[in-house]
Amino acid sequence: METKYSIGLDYGTNSVRAVIINVKNGSQVGEGVFHYTHGNSGVLTHSSKPLMARQHPQDYIDGYCEAVTQAVRDAQVSSDFTPDKIIGIGVDTTGSSPMPIDKDATPLALKESFTDNPDAWVWLWKDHTSYEEAEKINTIAGMYRPQFLSKIGGSYSSEWFWAKIWHALRVNPEVFDAAYTWIEIADWIPASLCEVNDADKIKRGICAAGHKALYHQEWNGYPDKEFLEMLDPKMKKLKATLPSKAGENDEIAGHLSSKWAQKMGIPAGIPVAMGAFDAHYGGIGSGIAPGTLIKNIGTSCCDIMVAPLSDHLMDIPGLCGIVPGSVLPGHYGLEAGQSAIGDIFGWFVNVISRGSDKKAVFREIENEAEKIAPGESGLIALDWMNGNRTILVDQRLTGLFVGMTLHTTAAEMYRALVEATAFGARIIAERFEEYGVPVERVINCGGIPYKSTLLMQIYADVFGKTMELSQSHQTAALGSAIAGAVVAGSQDGGYDNYADASKSMTGVLATRYEPNPSAVKIYNQLYPLYKELHDSFGMDQEQRDLSHIMKKLMHIRDSVKGATSK
Amino acid sequence: METKYSIGLDYGTNSVRAVIINVKNGSQVGEGVFHYTHGNSGVLTHSSKPLMARQHPQDYIDGYCEAVTQAVRDAQVSSDFTPDKIIGIGVDTTGSSPMPIDKDATPLALKESFTDNPDAWVWLWKDHTSYEEAEKINTIAGMYRPQFLSKIGGSYSSEWFWAKIWHALRVNPEVFDAAYTWIEIADWIPASLCEVNDADKIKRGICAAGHKALYHQEWNGYPDKEFLEMLDPKMKKLKATLPSKAGENDEIAGHLSSKWAQKMGIPAGIPVAMGAFDAHYGGIGSGIAPGTLIKNIGTSCCDIMVAPLSDHLMDIPGLCGIVPGSVLPGHYGLEAGQSAIGDIFGWFVNVISRGSDKKAVFREIENEAEKIAPGESGLIALDWMNGNRTILVDQRLTGLFVGMTLHTTAAEMYRALVEATAFGARIIAERFEEYGVPVERVINCGGIPYKSTLLMQIYADVFGKTMELSQSHQTAALGSAIAGAVVAGSQDGGYDNYADASKSMTGVLATRYEPNPSAVKIYNQLYPLYKELHDSFGMDQEQRDLSHIMKKLMHIRDSVKGATSK
Repeated sequence: METKYSIGLDYGTNSVRAVIINVKNGSQVGEGVFHYTHGNSGVLTHSSKPLMARQHPQDYIDGYCEAVTQAVRDAQVSSDFTPDKIIGIGVDTTGSSPMPIDKDATPLALKESFTDNPDAWVWLWKDHTSYEEAEKINTIAGMYRPQFLSKIGGSYSSEWFWAKIWHALRVNPEVFDAAYTWIEIADWIPASLCEVNDADKIKRGICAAGHKALYHQEWNGYPDKEFLEMLDPKMKKLKATLPSKAGENDEIAGHLSSKWAQKMGIPAGIPVAMGAFDAHYGGIGSGIAPGTLIKNIGTSCCDIMVAPLSDHLMDIPGLCGIVPGSVLPGHYGLEAGQSAIGDIFGWFVNVISRGSDKKAVFREIENEAEKIAPGESGLIALDWMNGNRTILVDQRLTGLFVGMTLHTTAAEMYRALVEATAFGARIIAERFEEYGVPVERVINCGGIPYKSTLLMQIYADVFGKTMELSQSHQTAALGSAIAGAVVAGSQDGGYDNYADASKSMTGVLATRYEPNPSAVKIYNQLYPLYKELHDSFGMDQEQRDLSHIMKKLMHIRDSVKGATSK
Repeated sequence: METKYSIGLDYGTNSVRAVIINVKNGSQVGEGVFHYTHGNSGVLTHSSKPLMARQHPQDYIDGYCEAVTQAVRDAQVSSDFTPDKIIGIGVDTTGSSPMPIDKDATPLALKESFTDNPDAWVWLWKDHTSYEEAEKINTIAGMYRPQFLSKIGGSYSSEWFWAKIWHALRVNPEVFDAAYTWIEIADWIPASLCEVNDADKIKRGICAAGHKALYHQEWNGYPDKEFLEMLDPKMKKLKATLPSKAGENDEIAGHLSSKWAQKMGIPAGIPVAMGAFDAHYGGIGSGIAPGTLIKNIGTSCCDIMVAPLSDHLMDIPGLCGIVPGSVLPGHYGLEAGQSAIGDIFGWFVNVISRGSDKKAVFREIENEAEKIAPGESGLIALDWMNGNRTILVDQRLTGLFVGMTLHTTAAEMYRALVEATAFGARIIAERFEEYGVPVERVINCGGIPYKSTLLMQIYADVFGKTMELSQSHQTAALGSAIAGAVVAGSQDGGYDNYADASKSMTGVLATRYEPNPSAVKIYNQLYPLYKELHDSFGMDQEQRDLSHIMKKLMHIRDSVKGATSK
């Protein structure tokens, strides 16, 4: 049978990437990138509002037109490819990144009257303006809907759907009133490709709904009207605009409109898969399956696992979410993460590279750190310089170094930071296992695993497990393209399910990191100390309660900053 | 009356300094320095024995001859001075720095048969080879002579007299057997100036005896024979070689011999005061008096206080010693300290100044740190990179940083280290006060107080007290010269007691650091957090016990190093 192709669209924070993937073997034949033009590299910020981060939806439309056109041009260099062989499209995006739309599905930001109003734009995942609303949602849900919190690891985040919408209502009721509803860009972009022009007809994906918007089958979908009313009476109008059932990743969001098909030079009417978050389609692009932990390690880390629905999992405290169908149909989708990985190493290199070339210092220090034996430095660190996402769910936690002597070197401190991220990762893996989700394989993707042999070897030694590397460096885009191939189905040259697609289209590199038994032995002595620091500084405990120390430092710091700025 | 002069001899780790001081007003009119010639800048070390540090006594003899000759030459530039106006000599040294001597008071190291044997040299204060013996002394004294430990803060150190002698016996019985007795250089150097040629006739000072050799009036002097026998049967021979009463600082050790007087060009027969440790005579040179804490802040910090014997002080746990008469006659001498101050700042600057000029980085970072407000960084540190001397008496403790975020700067970390040393200093001051020794004034000396306005202001703000600076930069040498003036007595143009001498010969600079009330308020919030970290990491506690973490890290580190070096 003739080779078919699928398109994956990966919407990142600053740009969108389109890839064209050979459906038979997962190889990439073409690529195009569009850099967003609004704000600062696609992100609208404001010096007086350091927590704000917004995006303009016009960048998404320009993005698919331009990136797909480029990718098609790029792929035509390959002898076999022609655009008519494209059978489907998948889309992944950042999230939670909701925006207000009107009844005909037009984003308010695309209307002349709102285009200059940042509150009508997309509230990007890293917008943290809604921290007060998040706290209130936690309080109200804790009292009246504890079940809501138990599905998301115990705590609702300021980065998420309802907190952002509620904050918009409080600071800009005009925008809230003008909106018919709010929608994640993961749902809106596929609808835009298909020119769905009725907000009620846009399918919403289980990934965003379940992980960020308190959707669960157990209570028949999104939160009930009464709950929304407890937040604000005006909020309840949204309930009627949300579907009672969210779609899974093997469902079709719609079919590509003629207008956009013509513009991009690809076939009209091909299926567009349900949109999902980058980490989730990234999991699919890395070959996720029950028993496999996918670690996407970059500036931060996102961990994804799946487990068959037949396993009837309990709620897992501290996880970002446990959502049936959110990654693979028929499976729980489990998401966890670490708030900073590469960002921590970048911070430390910044601290020690006064006047030196930072890249050179990075190289030097990785080399020096590689020569240090596990345990040799007498150091241990906590990797909380940007808070702790899983399992403590606490953005106000901070970093710690312990064990320095007058002989401690910068390379030893750097290595201790890498080890700290590994210990933090092990805590997450053990949390999965404690709740009945075995971690049999670990497949790594993202930027750092391909760059740092130091980090990968330490992870292998701290886990006591082989670290594998995903074959693709663009796992999210590949995963989206796999979704395109699955919704096309086998009759059109695609696949009927993810298991078949994954077998053909994903893989791991021959390079893998095996645990070194002597290092494993040392790390098995260090890990209990990390855990003790973790529990003592991170948890309220009767016995060893140092948990208020970091908070008090932050409180004092804030009060001083407040006093200074007056 | 004609102005008289006194000589102070200050024996440091690498050199000896002689000063000639105007007895009327304490001003210095001449100075000479002799740099030791043996070993590496006066210290014999060996790469295979990193804990060893020895000195050769010939350097002490060459030292007084050369340094005093220079000082006399230097002073003659002053119109009034002539050598015949010198009325006395005082000597301070490092300690505990004992060496073996024979019956005629000759150091074994000066005999041909032992001059190449480092175990027959002076065992310098920072020689740590005797850590096992120190541990055993603590065990044995803890069981059979608990009173011994309670006078020295609860723990006998590997740096001290008995541990060193016992170690010499175990590793080199030939040296031990050849020695008639062992003596602190603080006692031997004055005897050498006076050519005392009978070991039994050398007076031993209360300062070294009480702080380092378990001497106390309560048990009639040095430890009893039975105790020494418990260490090793051979040790008991030393008991008979030690006087039943140690001398105080207003006593005469002897009179300058004609031979040395002629060699140095000063009057023969002038009195030489009892020798004492640099920190103790430094306290006198800084104007010590009841209620005044003298802080000598350099690479480490030594704290000295005195209290009238009529106060009948209890034992003070954690202090290096509480010895009647050790600093001022008629007063308890109280010694405490921090194992590292300047060494910590030097370490951190070393970590962050990859390839940069270290001095420039020091200047830059002090300037940057000065601009940071107290509490603003959200950081706190423990200043234990070289262990904790007072009040925990634990060399195996290590450093800690807590509170880092991705925005933390090197200057913030540096400031946190300075603050940590200030908090550590406050713990010592509070320990004095808790046991009935009020701290009404703080006078600082040593290298750092004159160099770092950042440090002095932070100390004023953390203590909530004025920080004063000793007028003299050479407080130990000045204090020794004061001792020379006191043993000369008023009939020869000196003084009859330290109170009178101190009034005329010491003083503080006009520059002083006053506490800033808003900073004091913030540090009063931070200090309890420091204390909590201090107690949790440093003390065995039922409730908050993290005290084993650093030890375990060290244990693991040591086991790894041991394994690597095989």
